[in-house]
Amino acid sequence: MDQTPDILITNDDGIHAPGLREIKEALKGLGNLKVVAPDSERSAMGHAITMLHPLRVVEVSHGSELFGLAINGTPADCVKLAVHSLLPRLPRLVVSGINLGPNTGTNVLYSGTVSAATEGTILGIPSMAVSLRSFDKQSDFTPAGIYARQFAEKILARGLPDGILLNLNVPAIPKETIKGVRLTRLARYRYRDRYDRRQDPRGRDYFWLTGEDAEVLNPSSDADAVAVEQGYVSLTPLCYDLTCRDFMPELEGWI
Amino acid sequence: MDQTPDILITNDDGIHAPGLREIKEALKGLGNLKVVAPDSERSAMGHAITMLHPLRVVEVSHGSELFGLAINGTPADCVKLAVHSLLPRLPRLVVSGINLGPNTGTNVLYSGTVSAATEGTILGIPSMAVSLRSFDKQSDFTPAGIYARQFAEKILARGLPDGILLNLNVPAIPKETIKGVRLTRLARYRYRDRYDRRQDPRGRDYFWLTGEDAEVLNPSSDADAVAVEQGYVSLTPLCYDLTCRDFMPELEGWI
Repeated sequence: MDQTPDILITNDDGIHAPGLREIKEALKGLGNLKVVAPDSERSAMGHAITMLHPLRVVEVSHGSELFGLAINGTPADCVKLAVHSLLPRLPRLVVSGINLGPNTGTNVLYSGTVSAATEGTILGIPSMAVSLRSFDKQSDFTPAGIYARQFAEKILARGLPDGILLNLNVPAIPKETIKGVRLTRLARYRYRDRYDRRQDPRGRDYFWLTGEDAEVLNPSSDADAVAVEQGYVSLTPLCYDLTCRDFMPELEGWI
Repeated sequence: MDQTPDILITNDDGIHAPGLREIKEALKGLGNLKVVAPDSERSAMGHAITMLHPLRVVEVSHGSELFGLAINGTPADCVKLAVHSLLPRLPRLVVSGINLGPNTGTNVLYSGTVSAATEGTILGIPSMAVSLRSFDKQSDFTPAGIYARQFAEKILARGLPDGILLNLNVPAIPKETIKGVRLTRLARYRYRDRYDRRQDPRGRDYFWLTGEDAEVLNPSSDADAVAVEQGYVSLTPLCYDLTCRDFMPELEGWI
């Protein structure tokens, strides 16, 4: 029997994103690398899944070599469909990334990258999301790839507890200037969104989300956003049980 | 100064859904009710937000009376845009629902209904999601409306701690047979998704998510899915900090 683990690779920037090529390169030799990713950018999709229209699968080759499968769906769709219909057996690891742009703090709720890893976890597969703190497409993904490989190896060797995933954010600086890995919690952001109000050629209003100022409500050094800003790789264990047990005793009095 | 609170009402079934009319009816008299909802069904959108295309706002009237504003976006978009660009001031409460179909357990991650309430919470507004455990459009929403009003009144009177929202699931049975309100935690589901593999008229394959069998991994009576199945209204406090602190000591050893 083939003992080589299958590793499912996905992202939310789409199958043509540089970060996806980089993670596949970085994980070489760790297992059978299976790329199943959205056919175009699906940022800020959160944990959306597609139920109202069908999903199509297209093979994408680089030269004569199959690179991966492209899906007209969300990152979570890619993981679901890959696991249930496309892969020959359950992968031993899901890696989502390398995302262009950090996925820290409250932003993880909107993140397709993290949601793909969450979906893997929900399906019982150890999973990890990897993001680079840069929005520049020319960024060097190599350091992020090195750290991603390091933690992929650890997950393959030790596993992860059921229901827990890892969220890795890497600063966009040369490897030798990265100060190390810091264990972090999610920062809590308060957003001040800005919508541009514009008019179309026929004089009708429309709105466009132009930017968000995010204030970190709890800016201590163990917050992921702070750690990565200070030059550390941020490693955060996440779970997807949103139950707030701390408030239960008080809420009991409301019933 | 007008002391009447503004209450923002939204959903993920869309502005024409019966459950939206029902919740507006049920909350009458509690404040200025402002409906801002998706222009069509946006189920399973999770916490998706729209960044790649513009949002348009359309007034929807019932007879001669303005019912609310319809947006070509996700539930989270509706809350963001309403708060930042459409409402005259910060609402005192966001109510999302009444959803046709329960939003319990791991499903809350996929739920547009819950994500709209989460978005309200992120923006600092006390928020609540309300769902009916039925997929039948002819269902009687009245009991769910009664409980929604009850907890809306309590939130308006007492507030909610920053970062915490309420998730209410109501069984689709007559009010007098509901056994009461039970304080619950989210059930943990393990899904066995099923995708139909079909062929289009030109012989090309496509996949369609046809259903999910969900097994509750922790089926005790304090699980939300179990409570509502047993005839109780399920009340779950949620937060959106996904950090898994329990695993931190062990993960420290990985670095």
